[in-house]
Amino acid sequence: MEKISAEEALGLVLGKVYPKQESQNIPVNEALGRVCADTVYAPIDNPPFDRSPFDGFALRSADSTGASPSNPMRLRVAGTVYAGDVYTKRLEQKDAVRIMTGAMFPTGCDCMVMQENVRIENGGAEILVTGPVGSYENYVRAGEDIRKGQLLIEAGERLSFAHLAILSAMGFAYVPVKNLPLLGLLCTGDELAPAGKPLPPGKIYNSNETLIGLRMRELGFVPKILPVSGDEAGMVAAKIDAVIEELDALITTGAVSVGEKDIFHDVFKILGVEKLFWRLNSKPGGAILCGIYRGRPLLCLSGNPFAALTGFELIVKPVIGKIASRDDLAIRKQRVKLDGDLDAKPIRRFIRARTEDGKAKFPTEHMSGQIFSIVGCNCLLDIPAGAALSTGSEAEALLY
Amino acid sequence: MEKISAEEALGLVLGKVYPKQESQNIPVNEALGRVCADTVYAPIDNPPFDRSPFDGFALRSADSTGASPSNPMRLRVAGTVYAGDVYTKRLEQKDAVRIMTGAMFPTGCDCMVMQENVRIENGGAEILVTGPVGSYENYVRAGEDIRKGQLLIEAGERLSFAHLAILSAMGFAYVPVKNLPLLGLLCTGDELAPAGKPLPPGKIYNSNETLIGLRMRELGFVPKILPVSGDEAGMVAAKIDAVIEELDALITTGAVSVGEKDIFHDVFKILGVEKLFWRLNSKPGGAILCGIYRGRPLLCLSGNPFAALTGFELIVKPVIGKIASRDDLAIRKQRVKLDGDLDAKPIRRFIRARTEDGKAKFPTEHMSGQIFSIVGCNCLLDIPAGAALSTGSEAEALLY
Repeated sequence: MEKISAEEALGLVLGKVYPKQESQNIPVNEALGRVCADTVYAPIDNPPFDRSPFDGFALRSADSTGASPSNPMRLRVAGTVYAGDVYTKRLEQKDAVRIMTGAMFPTGCDCMVMQENVRIENGGAEILVTGPVGSYENYVRAGEDIRKGQLLIEAGERLSFAHLAILSAMGFAYVPVKNLPLLGLLCTGDELAPAGKPLPPGKIYNSNETLIGLRMRELGFVPKILPVSGDEAGMVAAKIDAVIEELDALITTGAVSVGEKDIFHDVFKILGVEKLFWRLNSKPGGAILCGIYRGRPLLCLSGNPFAALTGFELIVKPVIGKIASRDDLAIRKQRVKLDGDLDAKPIRRFIRARTEDGKAKFPTEHMSGQIFSIVGCNCLLDIPAGAALSTGSEAEALLY
Repeated sequence: MEKISAEEALGLVLGKVYPKQESQNIPVNEALGRVCADTVYAPIDNPPFDRSPFDGFALRSADSTGASPSNPMRLRVAGTVYAGDVYTKRLEQKDAVRIMTGAMFPTGCDCMVMQENVRIENGGAEILVTGPVGSYENYVRAGEDIRKGQLLIEAGERLSFAHLAILSAMGFAYVPVKNLPLLGLLCTGDELAPAGKPLPPGKIYNSNETLIGLRMRELGFVPKILPVSGDEAGMVAAKIDAVIEELDALITTGAVSVGEKDIFHDVFKILGVEKLFWRLNSKPGGAILCGIYRGRPLLCLSGNPFAALTGFELIVKPVIGKIASRDDLAIRKQRVKLDGDLDAKPIRRFIRARTEDGKAKFPTEHMSGQIFSIVGCNCLLDIPAGAALSTGSEAEALLY
C-alpha cells in the first residue's frame, strides 16, 4: 500500500464512520461537556413573572407624579412581598408594597423605588417618595431574559455549565444527550512490563496506555482499557473479535511497522478487516494502520509514544470526534511564527511545540520515542518535506 | 462595613486560607488534573537500555568500514532480537543480529542499519552492507530521553496526560497527589422550586446550583451539593454548623443583600463567623459576604445568577485555587480591545464577554439576573467607574 498524506488518510476513515445516533436523558447536573441530542426550546419565560431587581417599595408610577424633595409624596405601606410569594391584597391609590429582590410585583404596581432612595416613616407604615418614579423603572418584565418558545440550545451543541444553568432555570431536571461513544484501548507488545514492579532486562513500562488513555479522558471520553497483549496475531485477533461489538471504535498501540512482530498486518488478515490505509508520508506516527471491522474503525497506532500521540491527534481525534458529534475535535490549524530553527528533512514532519500569542517554541530533541518533552506542548508544527525553517518563519500548527 | 474593591476583598480571604496539606497516593491513570504532592525524580533511565529505533540489523561499526555499493561487506546474521528480549549469544567478527524496533542492542553492537538499506541473502542468513555505518548510528542510548535521578515533576505541578505518561514510563503505578478540597454548595431562597415539576406562582427554578456547581466541576472539583434551604437564619446556621467540619470551604448563594430575608447577616451572628467583608464597590456580584468559620472560608454569593458567577470568578475561584494549590485558578488578566460601546456608570462594572484574538464581544443586555447571554462568554471586562468606552477602546479582561 502507498504511503498517503495525513489528510487523505483521515478522509478515508471519516468516509466510513458515522455519528452515533443513540441518545439518552440524563440529569442536567451530570451533563457537563455532553452533546445535546435535541433542539431545546424554552418551556417558560425567564424571569417567569414581572419581578423586582432590588429591595425597596413597589408602587404605581402615577402616585409619584410631581414628587420632589420639597414636595415628597406620602404613600402607605400596605404590606410586604418576599421573593417566592404572591401578593394578593387589592391596592388602593397611594398604596406602596415593601418588595424584596426577586419578588413578583403586586398587581397594579408598575415600578419600584430602592429603599435607600425613600424616607421611611411611622416605623415602616409609610414612605416619602422624593422624586417621580417612571413607569417600569426598576421593573424586570417576565421573559426579559428568555421568552417562552425561544430556541435555547441547538441539537449538537456541547453543553457548558452556562447551557445547563439555563436548562435548570427553565425547570428541566433531565437533558437529552448523545450517548458517549465507548472507545477501546489495547496496548500490545511483548516488551511491555507491568508498572509497580522491577523492570526485567530488555523490557519497558507501558506509557501508551496512560498517554493515549488519559488524552481520551481529557477530551471527555471514558475509554475501556483492555489488558495489555503480547505479540501473537491469533490471540490479538481473538481479543478484538470478542470485544469489538460493544465498542464504537478500537484504538491500539504497537506492532504496525515492518518488523517480524508487527502483527497487526496478520491480525487484519485473520479478522478480514477492511483495510483503509497503512502508513502516512510523514513522521513521526507514520506507521499507522486503519481499517473497518464489523462497522467499527480499528485505528492502530505506533508503539513509540510520541508517534502514537501524533497519530492520535492527526487521525484518531477527528474520527472519534465525528462519532461523538464533537465539532470541537476536528482538526484546527493556526499560522504561527517559529521560535527556533529546523533543518530540512526529506519527509514531512510533525514537531511537538507549544504555541502562545502566535509564537511556537519547540524542544530541540523530538524523536518519536521521547516522551519527556511532550509536557507543556499544545500543538504539532506541520513542517513540509524539504523545508528549512528558522526563527521568525511561519508554519502551520495543528492545535491539540 | 465599607464596600471594598474586589482586590482588597480577595486579599482579605486569601490571608485567611491555606493550601490543603494532606496528600494521598492514587493510581497514575486516575490522577489527570490532580496536583502532584511531591517532587518526583526518575528512578530509571528512559529508554532503560540502549535500543534500536528501527527494524533492521545491529552490527559493529568497524565491520562496515570501507563498505560501498561496489564493495559490500558480507555479514552473517547470527540471530534475532525482538523488543522485550535480551540477546545473550556471543558475537564473532562480521556477525550481525536481526533487530526489531525497540529491542535492546546485543552487547558488542554499536549501530544498526535499516532493513531497507541492506541486501538480504541466503534466505536471511547473510546481509550485504553497501556503505559504512557510523558508530552509534541509528542507536538510541539508555537515558537519552530521561536520565535516572533527573527531576521529572515538581511538587505543585498539575498533572497532565503527558506528566502521567512519563510516570508510567518510569514504572510508577501510583502518584502522590494533594487531596482534592471538598467544597460545599448551599443554595438558599424561599423562592426556589424543584426542577421537573410545574412552577408555582412567584417561584423560580434553582439555576445557581447548576451554574456554580458545574463551574466547580469544570475546574476539577467535585462539590458536595447541600439540599436547598429556605430563608430561615437559624435553620441555615444549624445546617452550616453540621457540615462545615467535613468541608474545606462552603459556598452559598442568596440572601446576602439588604432585604428583610437576607438572612446571612444573622447566620454569621448566630454562628459567630469572623466576618471579613460585605459588599464590593462593583457590580454585579457586589453583594457578597465572606467570613471564616471554624477555620473554613464561608463565601456567600448573591442569588442573582450572573452576580453569583461574577462573585465566584472574582473571589471564590482564586480562594479555592489557593486551598487546592492550583496556581492556574489565580486571577488572570489580559488587555483586550472592545468590540462594542459601553456608557459610563458611576460604579465599577464587570461585564460578561467573549474574548478571541485580543478582541472582546459582549451582549447588549448584561443585567445580573440574566443568564441566557452567559453562554459562550469566557471573561469579565473590568470597566472602571465613570469610564465611557467605545469600540476599539482597551479594557482589562479577567479570564474565566
